[in-house]
Amino acid sequence: MIFGRVAGTVISREKADKLTGARYRLIEKCDQKGTELNDFLVALDMVNSSENDVVLLAQGSSCSWTDITKNKAVDAIIVGIVDLIDEKGKLTYKR
Amino acid sequence: MIFGRVAGTVISREKADKLTGARYRLIEKCDQKGTELNDFLVALDMVNSSENDVVLLAQGSSCSWTDITKNKAVDAIIVGIVDLIDEKGKLTYKR
Amino acid sequence: MIFGRVAGTVISREKADKLTGARYRLIEKCDQKGTELNDFLVALDMVNSSENDVVLLAQGSSCSWTDITKNKAVDAIIVGIVDLIDEKGKLTYKR
Amino acid sequence: MIFGRVAGTVISREKADKLTGARYRLIEKCDQKGTELNDFLVALDMVNSSENDVVLLAQGSSCSWTDITKNKAVDAIIVGIVDLIDEKGKLTYKR
Amino acid sequence: MIFGRVAGTVISREKADKLTGARYRLIEKCDQKGTELNDFLVALDMVNSSENDVVLLAQGSSCSWTDITKNKAVDAIIVGIVDLIDEKGKLTYKR
Repeated sequence: MIFGRVAGTVISREKADKLTGARYRLIEKCDQKGTELNDFLVALDMVNSSENDVVLLAQGSSCSWTDITKNKAVDAIIVGIVDLIDEKGKLTYKR
Repeated sequence: MIFGRVAGTVISREKADKLTGARYRLIEKCDQKGTELNDFLVALDMVNSSENDVVLLAQGSSCSWTDITKNKAVDAIIVGIVDLIDEKGKLTYKR
Repeated sequence: MIFGRVAGTVISREKADKLTGARYRLIEKCDQKGTELNDFLVALDMVNSSENDVVLLAQGSSCSWTDITKNKAVDAIIVGIVDLIDEKGKLTYKR
Repeated sequence: MIFGRVAGTVISREKADKLTGARYRLIEKCDQKGTELNDFLVALDMVNSSENDVVLLAQGSSCSWTDITKNKAVDAIIVGIVDLIDEKGKLTYKR
Repeated sequence: MIFGRVAGTVISREKADKLTGARYRLIEKCDQKGTELNDFLVALDMVNSSENDVVLLAQGSSCSWTDITKNKAVDAIIVGIVDLIDEKGKLTYKR
């Protein structure tokens, strides 16, 4: 999984993924300190995240294994909201 | 998912993907503002997109989960046409 | 899918992929104009391509969904020979 | 698989991966000598690793094939703790 | 598939991949001439390769389709030992 920060929302009318009602989040990748990296992607929100949250993202076919995304054309999902990141005994990020 | 802008069409005669009649779109990757990045790929069009539309692309094995692509050798599909992108409360793209 | 140009052939004696008789092609990635990018990979030829053809490549697990590659350890296949690439109304490549 | 060094722990409260109790490790990628590369990711710990261990990481859908991760939304796991790395007859890393 | 050169062996005691007895090879990626690229990964040896062999590597979920790796957490395997590479009618590599 990689780290990202919730930057906003993406709205799409015509959709081929059979995920009516699901929320697409605009995500900016960030490092283990929560620092944004100016690299964006779109992920399905599985955990009711809020803007600015640091989140864990799963990518690729692993995304097809949740109840909501089962057998759907989704390649990036938010699987967790990060509370703490500890690097070599020091807190680098706290929610 | 990542953002792309529909740049054109790709026509291929001999095909091994059993997708007769499907439309291959030439896609130029773009950022969350819709700015093109001069990096191209080819995706199957699932949503009847038009040239210049900003679209959402799913890549990898997740592409095998739509009715049309089920069990086909396709690794990139257009899953949605983007209407709005909101980044930190500001519209960065509007259709 | 991405574009590649057929650059040659790769012969491998011991193989673990249970694909006796299949032809491995040396592929040089190229852009939407057919310009080579000096980046090579090896793909299974599904469409009887010839040297110098511009082809469409599928990568990753989607490659396991053709009749020949079903459940084989193959991660790149040629799925089509490109006839035409149209970018913003201009032909950038013609076979 | 790639090499990584266990750098710490990531704690996430809301989770969509149905992996209650699993431990997320902060991993810094490293080379075949164990030298860190300042590139971080998060992996599920399958082998009870300790901080500073050099580990083998599997990524992508292959991660769904262990007993614990079966059909879970996990895209990176620690599959082994490295004891020795031999490069051209010389030990480049020893636990 | 991509090219790699067998550079050595990796020994790992605790393993989560249920592949007791399998051999992990240290692989240095190389180009179509066999020239090493100073970029290393670890792959499961399916073809009894020897040090310095140029090999074909399959990556990602396609690796789960051999008899040995079926449903195992392995994301890179050696699927063939390369005998000849022909680029535009010239041998660039011969075993």
